[in-house]
Amino acid sequence: MSMDGKKQFDRPPKRDREPREEQELSLIEGRNALNEALKAGRTLNKVFIAAGDTDAGLRRLAAEARKAGAVVVETDRRKLDDMSVTGAHQGVIASVAVKEYCSVQDILDNARSRGEAPLIVLCDEVSDGHNLGAIIRTAECVGAHGVIIPKRRSAALTAVVAKTSAGAAEYMPVARVPNLTAAIKELKDAGVWVYGTAADAKSELWKTDLSGPMALVIGSEGDGMGRLVAENCDFTLSIPMKGHISSLNASASAAIVLYEALRQRTEK
Amino acid sequence: MSMDGKKQFDRPPKRDREPREEQELSLIEGRNALNEALKAGRTLNKVFIAAGDTDAGLRRLAAEARKAGAVVVETDRRKLDDMSVTGAHQGVIASVAVKEYCSVQDILDNARSRGEAPLIVLCDEVSDGHNLGAIIRTAECVGAHGVIIPKRRSAALTAVVAKTSAGAAEYMPVARVPNLTAAIKELKDAGVWVYGTAADAKSELWKTDLSGPMALVIGSEGDGMGRLVAENCDFTLSIPMKGHISSLNASASAAIVLYEALRQRTEK
Repeated sequence: MSMDGKKQFDRPPKRDREPREEQELSLIEGRNALNEALKAGRTLNKVFIAAGDTDAGLRRLAAEARKAGAVVVETDRRKLDDMSVTGAHQGVIASVAVKEYCSVQDILDNARSRGEAPLIVLCDEVSDGHNLGAIIRTAECVGAHGVIIPKRRSAALTAVVAKTSAGAAEYMPVARVPNLTAAIKELKDAGVWVYGTAADAKSELWKTDLSGPMALVIGSEGDGMGRLVAENCDFTLSIPMKGHISSLNASASAAIVLYEALRQRTEK
Repeated sequence: MSMDGKKQFDRPPKRDREPREEQELSLIEGRNALNEALKAGRTLNKVFIAAGDTDAGLRRLAAEARKAGAVVVETDRRKLDDMSVTGAHQGVIASVAVKEYCSVQDILDNARSRGEAPLIVLCDEVSDGHNLGAIIRTAECVGAHGVIIPKRRSAALTAVVAKTSAGAAEYMPVARVPNLTAAIKELKDAGVWVYGTAADAKSELWKTDLSGPMALVIGSEGDGMGRLVAENCDFTLSIPMKGHISSLNASASAAIVLYEALRQRTEK
């Protein structure tokens, strides 16, 4: 982090705090996120932009939002700061209709309609919104068909997640399920193999066939996968570790395994 | 959605803020403390001094800090007040390295002593401490020999970075250089191939040989690699993108390329 930013020192972080349920994806913050929302054809209610900011990119975004039917409101920058959930609005915040969660079946249908073997990510209690956003971003880049999160003990689709996903949350179908093991069963019944990661797994990443229909379970930052979820995986694989520490960040693990899956699919 | 609910937006979370314990480790406040730090030869990242304060003692301290390699930043006094943990900064606050920096040669020696082809990460203006910490963590897991960061426009080895790296910063040699292109030249002279990533690069990740002596340049979150740095890369490679958005987070990019390098080395 830059030592120039004054935000660093004034108050303790609130990174664990998530907005309330009804706020889910109700705010889109930042230029990239708004740009992606416009490209994805999301219905915008209002777009608040920093009054007096003459930045060309910002003004172009405002014009496009207006063309798309949004009401654009010039707003004092301090008011934007107050509204902001992410603390990084870059001069623009849009309010949008809450994005609907999809079902596990929708994700399977998404793969089928694209004629591809399912590539799905299950997040097992990934409680940090920044981590969930990063995972959704990587999942979108790798061409995954959907992300599944549990209702409890998980970050939800909040503005923080949307912002961290750099717009990916606009495109990625996300299912929110009451019970992750039930979702795993549903995937298995549909012919999807379920993979987890574990430090002591016998199967090494690169020696594991990831080219078929696949769902990858990503465990929580601290504790990895829950016991019941781990027991329900068809395979557990280990990511090779060559250093002193032996655990990767949840979103780094996801990036490594998902891109290995894409490599194998591409070569096949 | 109503934008009126005042509870909804009361205060933005500040993920850049760190708790006090963390700050106290990374900040030195006041003239005596800075003087002692200089005498003890501690590595200073940046020294913030009150703009317009012409006090001779303060100016002498600034000159000494500069001579010792620190970047001295003239800062508005109110900004210093905001930064200050003790509330008694006397016009000067210095941020210090959590750990001593090494040299580029130390990193090359590290690879040699382990009998391995160098695997090195260069961060080109990665300004977010959480991102730098995540990159150091992945670099440590993959068995890299060192990380190189520039002195300016980059996060430094702060307590935030150390914390995000989950302990990896303790083990990973980190060199902080005044000039990244000069560091690239030093690596090239030592027989290391320098790789960058770019969306429009012709060479695809999986078709690029990454099994030799290698340094990977990771660009900044917003803008990618700087032009001069990009021009000095031996190869630029593209990470395949299959979705709508076309950019990965800097630490996800690092994880994907570094683990592909490890895969190729392991298979070789």
